[in-house]
Amino acid sequence: MPPYQIKFKPENCIIEADAGTSLLKAAAQAEIHIKSGCGGKGTCGACKVVVKSGDPLVLGTGNLTAEQISAGVRLACQTRIRGDLTLEVPPESRLQDHQVLMGDVQKGILPESGPDLLERFGHHSLAAKQRISLPAPTLTTNTSDWDRLNLELRWVLKAGEKPIHIPLAILKNLPEALRQANWDVSVTLTDTDSGMTVTYVEPGNDRPPYGLAIDIGTTTVVVYLINLRTGEIEDQQGSYNKQAKFGDDVISRIVYAAEETKHLEGIQHTVIETINALIDTILGRQSLTSCNISCAMVAGNTTMTQLFLGVDPRYIRLEPYIPTMTGVPSVTAQEIGLHMLPEALVHCYPAVASYVGGDIVAGTLITDLAKGEEISLFIDIGTNGEIVLGNQDWLVTCACSAGPSFEGGGITFGMRAMPGAIERVIIEPETLDVSLKVIGNSLPVGICGSGLVDCVAKLLGAGIIDRAGNFQLGHHSGSERLRAASDDKEFVLAWAEQAGGEKDVVITENDVKNIIRAKGSIYAGIRCLLKMVAVDMEMISRIVIAGGFGNYLNVHDAVQIGLLPDLEPERFEFIGNAAIKGARLALLSQNAWREAAELGRKMTYVELSVGATYMDEYVAALFLPHTDLSLFPSCQNSD
Amino acid sequence: MPPYQIKFKPENCIIEADAGTSLLKAAAQAEIHIKSGCGGKGTCGACKVVVKSGDPLVLGTGNLTAEQISAGVRLACQTRIRGDLTLEVPPESRLQDHQVLMGDVQKGILPESGPDLLERFGHHSLAAKQRISLPAPTLTTNTSDWDRLNLELRWVLKAGEKPIHIPLAILKNLPEALRQANWDVSVTLTDTDSGMTVTYVEPGNDRPPYGLAIDIGTTTVVVYLINLRTGEIEDQQGSYNKQAKFGDDVISRIVYAAEETKHLEGIQHTVIETINALIDTILGRQSLTSCNISCAMVAGNTTMTQLFLGVDPRYIRLEPYIPTMTGVPSVTAQEIGLHMLPEALVHCYPAVASYVGGDIVAGTLITDLAKGEEISLFIDIGTNGEIVLGNQDWLVTCACSAGPSFEGGGITFGMRAMPGAIERVIIEPETLDVSLKVIGNSLPVGICGSGLVDCVAKLLGAGIIDRAGNFQLGHHSGSERLRAASDDKEFVLAWAEQAGGEKDVVITENDVKNIIRAKGSIYAGIRCLLKMVAVDMEMISRIVIAGGFGNYLNVHDAVQIGLLPDLEPERFEFIGNAAIKGARLALLSQNAWREAAELGRKMTYVELSVGATYMDEYVAALFLPHTDLSLFPSCQNSD
Repeated sequence: MPPYQIKFKPENCIIEADAGTSLLKAAAQAEIHIKSGCGGKGTCGACKVVVKSGDPLVLGTGNLTAEQISAGVRLACQTRIRGDLTLEVPPESRLQDHQVLMGDVQKGILPESGPDLLERFGHHSLAAKQRISLPAPTLTTNTSDWDRLNLELRWVLKAGEKPIHIPLAILKNLPEALRQANWDVSVTLTDTDSGMTVTYVEPGNDRPPYGLAIDIGTTTVVVYLINLRTGEIEDQQGSYNKQAKFGDDVISRIVYAAEETKHLEGIQHTVIETINALIDTILGRQSLTSCNISCAMVAGNTTMTQLFLGVDPRYIRLEPYIPTMTGVPSVTAQEIGLHMLPEALVHCYPAVASYVGGDIVAGTLITDLAKGEEISLFIDIGTNGEIVLGNQDWLVTCACSAGPSFEGGGITFGMRAMPGAIERVIIEPETLDVSLKVIGNSLPVGICGSGLVDCVAKLLGAGIIDRAGNFQLGHHSGSERLRAASDDKEFVLAWAEQAGGEKDVVITENDVKNIIRAKGSIYAGIRCLLKMVAVDMEMISRIVIAGGFGNYLNVHDAVQIGLLPDLEPERFEFIGNAAIKGARLALLSQNAWREAAELGRKMTYVELSVGATYMDEYVAALFLPHTDLSLFPSCQNSD
Repeated sequence: MPPYQIKFKPENCIIEADAGTSLLKAAAQAEIHIKSGCGGKGTCGACKVVVKSGDPLVLGTGNLTAEQISAGVRLACQTRIRGDLTLEVPPESRLQDHQVLMGDVQKGILPESGPDLLERFGHHSLAAKQRISLPAPTLTTNTSDWDRLNLELRWVLKAGEKPIHIPLAILKNLPEALRQANWDVSVTLTDTDSGMTVTYVEPGNDRPPYGLAIDIGTTTVVVYLINLRTGEIEDQQGSYNKQAKFGDDVISRIVYAAEETKHLEGIQHTVIETINALIDTILGRQSLTSCNISCAMVAGNTTMTQLFLGVDPRYIRLEPYIPTMTGVPSVTAQEIGLHMLPEALVHCYPAVASYVGGDIVAGTLITDLAKGEEISLFIDIGTNGEIVLGNQDWLVTCACSAGPSFEGGGITFGMRAMPGAIERVIIEPETLDVSLKVIGNSLPVGICGSGLVDCVAKLLGAGIIDRAGNFQLGHHSGSERLRAASDDKEFVLAWAEQAGGEKDVVITENDVKNIIRAKGSIYAGIRCLLKMVAVDMEMISRIVIAGGFGNYLNVHDAVQIGLLPDLEPERFEFIGNAAIKGARLALLSQNAWREAAELGRKMTYVELSVGATYMDEYVAALFLPHTDLSLFPSCQNSD
């Protein structure tokens, strides 16, 4: 059976695919990345495409309406090829590039290349480059090529007791490399506790060695190019994690990866491909090649790290939630196919547990949580909320399933923090008139996490919702904005004509309940950790908030809805993308990297699903701001 | 152009080969290994084949006679395929399996599994196997799979400060390996100074770990299967080194390997194939699989070691004779394709210089040369003669190009020590009647190294040759055995009818001169080392002779012709295959392996081609036994 021709509009690109291929897979083949929240199960309805010509095999239509179906709309994951096709992929079905958090310096964010931490840990990178000029051998000084180079390297690098290894591939090329360079060479080496390893021998030059700091987020991936000699970030690039086509969250990706070995290989390949595209962009821009990249440090959550290395994550999802490893073996770039020196080492931050990963350890390191006697709280809010509490003597950590609400998931007009997202809302209590602040000052097309927090606080403040999140239609019967829809109640944030779309942008009662569940989950987690170590909320000197959400969050709003503890605003700090900063620090400092490994072992993981404490706390937190108002003294007026 | 059919007789096997393929290569493809002393240059005439039908392209006929050519004889390396062919490969053109020195216990040879050395160094193998039973994880004891295993391993193996690594491939399989075995597993690990590495995790069992001791000789390859728990040799197998098809000696192999990358890869593949065939035989016989083999230790000369690892040996041959490395990086079995656990380490004995290799370091270790104050001399006689002189304080070493005479090369009826080889000769001085001792008590077809030494001594004793090796035809004109041939003088050792062949088995004047040059080269080497360190011959307490030759050598004869120093017979020891014994010892003892590395660095290599000393000594040694008879007091009667 010959392959069929599948045409995609509006690109008008054509690919060939065999009968039985899903439209989702065919689109991926065409490099058109379609959303797939449920990982191809036909339940989320995100992967809508329109069949313009041809007659594919429809296995299911999920939640499509009869109208949509008759207009040719199909679910890409539930529709298979059995002949030539022309498809249109509408914008709302596409994964789009968006504002990727690359650690930009913002209010209160730790300075990116600030000298403090690097100076304290000491600048001694995980890779080095050394120019070496050797005397040519003679009949009386006839040591072997490697002995000749090794001896000089040991001397110049003050290697002491550290062995210097040479991989077979480098050794094979050594005689020619030395002779073609007339014995004047530059040698690149990895440098870790267990020894140094030669990764490249090239004609003598004075270019610095470079390393990559890599943040693998479930949603986005960021790469920094670091000059290992100066410590400077010389370039950076971020993009979506292309794995999103296999599902939005870690759970759907684990499910997909666990189905068959080919899936696991495919999902690993996809993240490597994502990173390589970023590397290639940076290398091109900087006129460098992969031979200039001598080291990489990765920070990601436990699932992202296992998928990055191709390690099956299935037991992360199954009780009792066991990751394959927490300390991660360093691998060579060639083992996983990264565009770097083949023998260069790729290190990954250690995880603590299945749902507290290397990104959180990086954040703990970079925020100096384990220094001093004062107690600090670190919160990373994304799809999961990870929390660390402690000081120099102890560290406890947990993960709460906050759900994707703060990233726009499960919210009618939810979206990520990108141009068009409402990030700030003002509601005039009398008239219910609305003023909006939209990212990029563009037309409002949806609402992002920080906008949702703000919005719920303002809905509560204006009396539109009660403390349980129920819409109070009766209180504002005069306003057109507050209305009952077919199966829900909703408040209009922007009218269709203001939004430049066909629909009014609204927030529904159901959306508000989702936000309450999400914030309740995080607040309950904080309370559990405090109880665990018998520490009062007041004793927390410092609360550091990381992640894309944290960057745009208004602390006052967050306290009003009971997401964050009711403490003085001065105690809050925002650190932005902690993972990438931690990756850079460990790349540049062997002491920091040693400390990171130590931190990973030192953090005590609290499994919230054991015992009833968490569930009790969670139920108590399902009010705005909380059932126990004594916890939120500053909010008592709003009631 | 279709491939042509090439039939080989008497096997009657048929292979397909393209036009332009040499008959030598086609034969190799048919697994018929043809001798090729010159590495395919058409000069040695060893690769004769007979064309029975077909018309190949003849590029050259070398030293073939007109008679041979008209009888269809061709040189396989100089003849190319251009149509179907039938070829006969006569026995004399074939590489044949022969008596491979596997360290059999013989007179004076150190006992193979003798406890002495292993007890002194301590039995602590380079690989270990440990059965581990783990408690299954729960919600409250939810450490990762690798942490769980690692912790228990550290405890049971008393790993102390040593890190335990886990390669990515093993980690990927770990979750299923643990769960399918119900948490009762056997773990195989490599164990070296730089740490331990997990190489296999299998369902719990009590089988021991096995290692391989491998001797890669230029001519023969020997593999021992070692039970790493008991230290016992549980099996052994030896064969020709299939690389012989690219040339008999290291120089022709270096020339071949340096021609193009494909040649280097091919010649590496050939030795790996040789070893794998031996491993497969042993595994089959012992009902083991490659997963039972957790470590290997290789001893070979510098060229063999570089070719084994695929490292271009070209600079070994070019002045100033530089090997790529002396200390050899350990590689994984999968890097070079050996039939063992893919992640198992393969170690190679370190070399000292281009012509003093790991086999000599192994010999130095196993003979305890560097212990005590007494001065010892170690001689390994093969194609090259390598010599080590020293004691606990110093060690000097050199290599002499003895040439292949002692292995039968360049001698009219020379052959290796295999059935049919004359190994002992008695000549009745009056009648010149000859009595022979033939290996395997079969008909004499040639003469091996020890036979040649004996023969030259007896020719001298009977006055048939003078001290310069010249035949004295006039002194024995009555004997039919002593005669002038067309272009040489010769002595008949066995008449054709006794030999069961078509020709008389003879030794010629030219043969005798070759032997004199070979023995002179070795004796001159010994003298140079002694001069170098200002030590008298008499001060040598012990002379240890290794190698296939040494096993069958008569010391008295060897002194008579001036090959060995004229010292009391009690001072001589024979150690047989020192390389394989050293490989076994290092495999079983980390201390021995450390000492081997140390020895490699400690030995001072003397380049004999620098200065005039060696040439002067060589010229002086071109008499029987020597120009300076005062060096051979016991031989003065024979003059």
